[in-house]
Formats: sequence, structure tokens, C-alpha cells
Amino acid sequence: MSKKSAAVNLWIVGSVGIDDVKTRTADRKNLMGGSLPFSTAAASFFAKTGAVGVVGSDFPAAFERRWQAFGTDLAGVQRQAGATFRWACAYDANMIERETLKTELGVFADFKPELPEAYKSAAFVLLGNIQPELQLHVLKQSAGAKFVALDTMNLWINIAKPALRKVIRRVNLLTVNDGEARMLTGKWNLCDCAAAILKMGPSHVIIKKGEHGALLFSKRGIFIVPAYPVGKLVDPTGAGDSFAGAFMGYLARGGRVTDGLMREALLHASAVASFSVEGFSLESLERLTLAQIGKRVAELKRMMAV
Amino acid sequence: MSKKSAAVNLWIVGSVGIDDVKTRTADRKNLMGGSLPFSTAAASFFAKTGAVGVVGSDFPAAFERRWQAFGTDLAGVQRQAGATFRWACAYDANMIERETLKTELGVFADFKPELPEAYKSAAFVLLGNIQPELQLHVLKQSAGAKFVALDTMNLWINIAKPALRKVIRRVNLLTVNDGEARMLTGKWNLCDCAAAILKMGPSHVIIKKGEHGALLFSKRGIFIVPAYPVGKLVDPTGAGDSFAGAFMGYLARGGRVTDGLMREALLHASAVASFSVEGFSLESLERLTLAQIGKRVAELKRMMAV
Repeated sequence: MSKKSAAVNLWIVGSVGIDDVKTRTADRKNLMGGSLPFSTAAASFFAKTGAVGVVGSDFPAAFERRWQAFGTDLAGVQRQAGATFRWACAYDANMIERETLKTELGVFADFKPELPEAYKSAAFVLLGNIQPELQLHVLKQSAGAKFVALDTMNLWINIAKPALRKVIRRVNLLTVNDGEARMLTGKWNLCDCAAAILKMGPSHVIIKKGEHGALLFSKRGIFIVPAYPVGKLVDPTGAGDSFAGAFMGYLARGGRVTDGLMREALLHASAVASFSVEGFSLESLERLTLAQIGKRVAELKRMMAV
Repeated sequence: MSKKSAAVNLWIVGSVGIDDVKTRTADRKNLMGGSLPFSTAAASFFAKTGAVGVVGSDFPAAFERRWQAFGTDLAGVQRQAGATFRWACAYDANMIERETLKTELGVFADFKPELPEAYKSAAFVLLGNIQPELQLHVLKQSAGAKFVALDTMNLWINIAKPALRKVIRRVNLLTVNDGEARMLTGKWNLCDCAAAILKMGPSHVIIKKGEHGALLFSKRGIFIVPAYPVGKLVDPTGAGDSFAGAFMGYLARGGRVTDGLMREALLHASAVASFSVEGFSLESLERLTLAQIGKRVAELKRMMAV
């Protein structure tokens, strides 16, 4: 999309969409959406981040400018003739359940992610929520990947489990929500789910519980991160993507993976996700500063301090 | 019930029952149950605790011995002619929802709690989950109460809200689960619920979220305590009562109420509740030692440490 392609610390592959979102009090159309804008925007607060995805010829130039304003490198975002992926959903009154009203793949149907040369040496990779086959295809182009995280969703667990298991074997970290962890493993207790996932290959698994925070499991134990108690929940869309992006961005900034950095990364991810849901689309992240993130991380620490 | 009545640091009023509990894998009958045995047993790990309740002539002497073995003072437990309160429930396969199969009030129907002389100077009081009128009746007999906590349930919010609001006005702390907080306040967001409850009188409110931990709200902020990730969930009955009892027992032991002590009390409550659900009835608490509680509190702290 952008001509310039700079070396990045982290690249992320995912979907780019134009969303309609309906909540009890609002009905917003033609919003920038998809897992990629949320995750790369969140990551770009911390590290030089490259985006790998596809948009159609109808993807507004204004969206591109707003995305780039986060500092995200868009060299890996192809612009194809055709329509951008479109998605619409409606939330229930309590913003817990959502109904998908529309999914039009557009150019996303024939998407074949290609990694810009400048991304190939990046040590940190986040395989955002797209078809497992594509995640594998793009991962194979990456020579420098040292720490790879994988995000997925119930759809792929349902219709592409063998391919998904193949990707899971090759990554260091799997991030899933509690329902997906249960679906993937056939177990209910989240400790059992985590133990089963750790046997599939990854050294770490993050189970996201939305408003209840997240759990990080590894051989060395469990780390619990609460969700920041959000006073005004406007739109939960993209919260999980913002969480994963901020987590990986924080790690990529440090360039190392230690238990201590992972815990800090989780707190920063929780803080960024809590801001993300305070506005539609990327609107709240666009107003956000590193200082505000730091303040919320400090608040979270105070809420957990004994 | 017991002749001897000793001075106590904390007294608790609640229900005493004989329970049948059905889970996916087990069907147990005639278990010691009710909010009072769970809460007083949990509190007795930390402080001299008196129980205020009623049992029928059929309440087994073995239950009384097992209860007393926790060190709980039973001088406030009346033995009346008639049947002990009986309750039966069945849990769904995932131990999340439960169906009440039987509620037979027995002697509990005409229960009029009377406070033993020796309890009247106790500074700490937990009004366990019974009719709000009875909670108020027994609270009025207490001259020494300095820090009063109130536990309640959806039933009283539904059928006795005015009386409940009267009790809420007189207590320092309300403990409710998330569903009850929403029912009581008519709000969904838990921050909004807490703000509304703090306006009703209490200086502190604890919102319990079961497997997701608990939140303590006060004017000075929020404290988040996670649930200890339990590997083997056997029977969730009484978890909330154990939590409230352990919390108040821990505070009563210190004899003071500070933010720091409250946070420690919440961690101890979380640990005790996590043991409680690892067995039926009081079985897991009967095997429990202070050292094991301390170990799990230390583990919880490690899981939260950054």
C-alpha cells in the first residue's frame, strides 16, 4: 500500500475490513475494522510494526492515512481490484453477545499474503486471525522469526482444525479466548485446556476472558492479569486484537522474552484493550498516548498490589 | 447447641441445612450445608468465631462435632423441635448453573435469631444470607459491632428489597455476586453497580465473580483479587459463604480494618474458597491447614506479581 518498506521489529498478518457496528445506543457504518488495523495500531505504540494484509480498491485513502498515523508500516498491505472485506454485527444490550449480520469476503477471498523483504528478519511475529493455511504460508517466508504468536477463532477450530493444529505446532504462543480454548481441547476447566494446548507445541498460552482479564500459562506457572474495569463500554469490537497486538508490540520493543517482560506486556495489553473498547473502531486508540497507557498500567498494578 | 459460650471476635448469622448435591459425576445426600457452617468454618481458621442459627432435632450429632472441630463457638445455634432446613440442587455438566430441586424450611421458617451475651461485644459481624428482617433483628442486639458485613442473594432482592435496603444502610460492607449487584442496582456495568451500592450506605462493596475472582470497591479505589485457578472442581456449593467467612475472619483476627488488611483478607478468602470447592460440603475445609492456605495465598501473589 505504502511504497516505503522499513525494517520492522514485529510484523502482523490479519484481516482488514470495513465494518458496520450496531449497539443498543448507536448504529455506525463504514468503520475501519478487521484484526489487522486493531492489532498493528496497538503494537505501534511500542514497536516498529509492519502490517500484512489486503484491501480492495474501495478502501478509503482516509483510512490509510489514519492507520499510518499510528506509525504502522503498510508495505505489506496489498491493494487489489475489488471490494474490501465487509463485516457487520449487532451487540446485545449488555455488549456480551454479538450477532454477525454480514460477511462479504471481497478481495480477502483470494488473499495470498506476501512478506516484504524488509520484514523477513523481524524476530517477532503475530499471526492474526485469518485462515490457518495463510498463516502457515506467510510464516514460511519469515527467516528471522524468533517468537511467533498465533491468534485464531472458533470458525477455524470448526472448519480447519487439522491445518490449525499444524500452525499451533510451529508457534511459541497461542492466544485464544476461553470458549475457543474449550472448543480446541474438548476440556472445560481452563487449567486443563491450557495443559492440553501446551502439549500441542507452544511454550506459552494466553487465555483471554474479556471483561474478566486473561491468564498466561507456561511450564513455569500461571500469571493472572485482570481487565481494567472500564466505566464506559462503547464497542468491544477489536478488543482481543488490540490486546494481542499490544502484547506483541511490548515484547518486540524489548527484543527479549522473559517472564518479567511477559507480565509487563500483559498489563500493557490489558490497558490498551481497555481503551480500545471505549470508542468505535480505532477512534479511542487514535486519541491515546503512551503516557495514558502507562497511567492505566500503574492503576492496574495498584489494583493488584498487596 | 453447645453449653459453653465464649467471647468471640466475630459472629455470623446464617442458615444451617442438610443438603443433597448432584453433579455430573456424583450424587451425595445428607451433607452438612447452609451458609453458616461454610462461613463460620472458614472464619474459624483465623479468628474466634460464633455461629448464630437454628437446627432441628434431626441435625446429626456427628455434624455438630465436625463443625465444632473447626473451633467455631456454637452457643448461638438453637436446637428446635422439628426438621432441619433441607435443600437439594443439581449442577450442570460445567458446574456453572445449578437448579434448586428442593427447599424445605423446617425449623428455619420460625427462626428468630438470638445473640448470646458473650457475642454482643464482638467488633466484627457477618450477616450471612437469610431474610433481611432477621438480619436486622439480630444486628440490633449487637452493642459492640464496629464492622458489619452483609451477604445476600437474589431471592431477597426479589421479594424483600425494602427490608434489604434498610439493612444495607446499616452495614459497612456488602458482598454480592455480579448478577445480584446488577439486580439490586438495575445497572449492568459493575463499576456503575458498585457506585450505586456505595451510595446506599456501605463504605465497601465486594462483587464476587466466582471463577473470575472478586472486586473490592470503596471511595479510595478498586482492588482486584483473582480466583485461584482450581484444577479439580468438585462442588461449588458454599464457595461464596466460605469466601465471606474467611474474609471477615481474617479481618477479625487483626482487629482493625485498613486497605492493606482488606487486600490480604481478600487473598485469604480467595484461597479458602478455592479449597472449599475441591470437595463436597465441608470435606475439603476439614482437611485444610493454615499452612496450606498460606501457601495458596503466596501462589496467588506470585500469579499477580509484576
